[in-house]
Amino acid sequence: MGAVIAAVETVDLRFPTSRDLAGSDAMNEAPDYSAAYVVLHSDSDSGPEGHGFTFTIGRGNELAVAAAAAIGRRAVGWEVAEVVGDLGGFSRWLQADSQLRWLGPAKGVVQLGLAAVVNAAWDLAGKVAGQPVWRLLADMDPQQIVDLVDWRYLRDVLTPAAARDLLDARVPGRAARTATLEAEGYPAYTTSAGWLGYDDATLERLCREAVDAGWESVKLKVGADLAHDVRRCAIAREVLGPRRRLMIDANQTLGVEDALRWMEALAPFDIHWFEEPTSPDDVLAHAAIARAIAPTRVATGEHAHNAVMFKQFLAAGAMGVCQLDATRPGGVDEAVAVLLLAAAHDVPVCPHAGGVGLCELVQHLAMFDYVAVGASREERMVEYVDHLHEHFVDPVRLVGTSYRAPERPGYSAEILPETRRAYAFPDGPVWARTPP
Amino acid sequence: MGAVIAAVETVDLRFPTSRDLAGSDAMNEAPDYSAAYVVLHSDSDSGPEGHGFTFTIGRGNELAVAAAAAIGRRAVGWEVAEVVGDLGGFSRWLQADSQLRWLGPAKGVVQLGLAAVVNAAWDLAGKVAGQPVWRLLADMDPQQIVDLVDWRYLRDVLTPAAARDLLDARVPGRAARTATLEAEGYPAYTTSAGWLGYDDATLERLCREAVDAGWESVKLKVGADLAHDVRRCAIAREVLGPRRRLMIDANQTLGVEDALRWMEALAPFDIHWFEEPTSPDDVLAHAAIARAIAPTRVATGEHAHNAVMFKQFLAAGAMGVCQLDATRPGGVDEAVAVLLLAAAHDVPVCPHAGGVGLCELVQHLAMFDYVAVGASREERMVEYVDHLHEHFVDPVRLVGTSYRAPERPGYSAEILPETRRAYAFPDGPVWARTPP
Repeated sequence: MGAVIAAVETVDLRFPTSRDLAGSDAMNEAPDYSAAYVVLHSDSDSGPEGHGFTFTIGRGNELAVAAAAAIGRRAVGWEVAEVVGDLGGFSRWLQADSQLRWLGPAKGVVQLGLAAVVNAAWDLAGKVAGQPVWRLLADMDPQQIVDLVDWRYLRDVLTPAAARDLLDARVPGRAARTATLEAEGYPAYTTSAGWLGYDDATLERLCREAVDAGWESVKLKVGADLAHDVRRCAIAREVLGPRRRLMIDANQTLGVEDALRWMEALAPFDIHWFEEPTSPDDVLAHAAIARAIAPTRVATGEHAHNAVMFKQFLAAGAMGVCQLDATRPGGVDEAVAVLLLAAAHDVPVCPHAGGVGLCELVQHLAMFDYVAVGASREERMVEYVDHLHEHFVDPVRLVGTSYRAPERPGYSAEILPETRRAYAFPDGPVWARTPP
Repeated sequence: MGAVIAAVETVDLRFPTSRDLAGSDAMNEAPDYSAAYVVLHSDSDSGPEGHGFTFTIGRGNELAVAAAAAIGRRAVGWEVAEVVGDLGGFSRWLQADSQLRWLGPAKGVVQLGLAAVVNAAWDLAGKVAGQPVWRLLADMDPQQIVDLVDWRYLRDVLTPAAARDLLDARVPGRAARTATLEAEGYPAYTTSAGWLGYDDATLERLCREAVDAGWESVKLKVGADLAHDVRRCAIAREVLGPRRRLMIDANQTLGVEDALRWMEALAPFDIHWFEEPTSPDDVLAHAAIARAIAPTRVATGEHAHNAVMFKQFLAAGAMGVCQLDATRPGGVDEAVAVLLLAAAHDVPVCPHAGGVGLCELVQHLAMFDYVAVGASREERMVEYVDHLHEHFVDPVRLVGTSYRAPERPGYSAEILPETRRAYAFPDGPVWARTPP
């Protein structure tokens, strides 16, 4: 018998980002970027640990930590080889406690906790294989990829056989796309210029710095005050010039009518996509907005909590850009389901990132998508925010405005041990000095 | 200044119902019915306490308790008179912490915690007014009722003005319907006969007992094995005779294709409604099933987590029977939104009950609906399970097979102090003797 998962450690990590206004938007005015952090420990002295987390914005992170602990208990006793050999089965096992399922199902805090544990299992699998997760996935054969997915509720829109066909068709190009990826990286866009809490002068300066740094695509937060947003979009478009892309993000603040009013007023600034106009649960409202503002596309998905939601958004034409998050659905396996659904609908995936560690995770998903699923970089880009990367063992590396492909084994999820001590909530020195 | 909310007490209550198979269904094979229980204490020695809870089925109840505590903290310092005078505003304030919102939004564990606190506030309001909650609601004027609702995401389907018109039109009949309700009660149906864990002989005996007790409508759990379900439905229909209603409930276990296969095989037994055929998040799949099995209706809603979901289910024709739960959406205020949406679509509300205390709560919602909103008992009935009522200060009372209108002030939510001590998890004597 090989190494066995012997303990699941959880840590409540919080970064006091609300002390400045980086990260502010119309819905989330003062976030403290946080991670409900999980370490899978095996009983082997020499074997690797699996690190994973889910992302929250502060208060309540203790709930995600407690959920990860409750779900993580189910991992104890699994052989590492079994986990690595059947990551889909392991993920389904974690979800198979009907009492915990009641608290979702597959949504909210229990889903966040699940994502942390599943992501840690993938980090472990990458380390065992000596591969970064994007490459571990991209080296799987199509049937292995299909088997990662829980198909129970998806077959009415995409069957496993159709997913297999889609993947098979893209096998021949994998090697060439991998080479392109390693040579050129994966395109990114920046949100750092446009946080809602910044004044006009700061916005203008940051947009100019973005242009100078070579960014071709910039996103602005909107949704609190239309006159304010018109002024900010005018500033941004002036600085960006006519050719660069300007995206806007309302962070769920609007109803359908207001969303259309906003878009009408901002359309003169040539908006590339309109992100999260309304409730993230509202497939039909997003579909109505999408029809009304075409050809401008609706981007959403960072708060879509499972593959059933993505399935509906895609089938209803309510999601023109798929902004998959790495920690809100149930981790890598469910992300694979979403990538397959998006590819089947020919919708580009532009993952949600920022926060703490989301860039580190989603780069793997986007690169796997490029090599084996979506198989294109057309209209694809990963969000980038230059924030908190210094806390990671294997931080993202940008070359120009592209993500460079990770090379180290694992999911790039591991946070430095000294950070895990310093930012532990509420007893780490960062918080002990300044209570929230 | 009047009495102020000084403390929010939380209790993790669990009933070891998994020791028999009452409550078993195809998804939830062994639930321990539980309550994340909240008491709002004021600083007045003489003023009433507000009691509320959310319902879970065991493991993870600690997460709902922790969420109720995190959200309940926001209630401390409110004057009781302010809460009672603006219950909608109080509910919106509880949800206005953007950091906690991130964990949903408005779904899963944080929504369950919210429901517990909001329900406690309504219990308090009823006690302050000296009225049972159904009557407190039914005595409000239409604008007061409209003001309970958070309209942000609902206006595309129902405007506050249209809701006001709907309520205004039903004011003239309120007194007559109240009199009818007090004389006759509100119709119920029973689920006690049909738990999936029972063998055929038990099922037959319980169906016969249900008929003997006068039940006109009986629900069976299905969804694990079709041949098994055909046999069980045959037994039930034989005992019920051709006139009584037989409903089936698959508890989310099926995909669309399987749901249609199930319904085709069970249709000969004259199924009154088909409940929760598939994922509770899947509006479009429910709509497809509803179109395929008409005129048999799809019943769903017990796992619909907020008014945005109900809005879509109703607008898409995906919900022929609206099975509102009292503790999964955010408590009474959001339940009022759902009642208005259902009435606007002329869909009957047949609330989800059973568990622990759900019958106690939903009777108030159904009766308010009858007096002031839906204004009909046609095709309406409240689920009834004869289980755990003895733990309540003001338990439901059935006259024949109808719920009798509650008369005591409050929301019937208060659990006896000795039960709160005995069933506290994990240290109460019931659990200390027999760990889970």
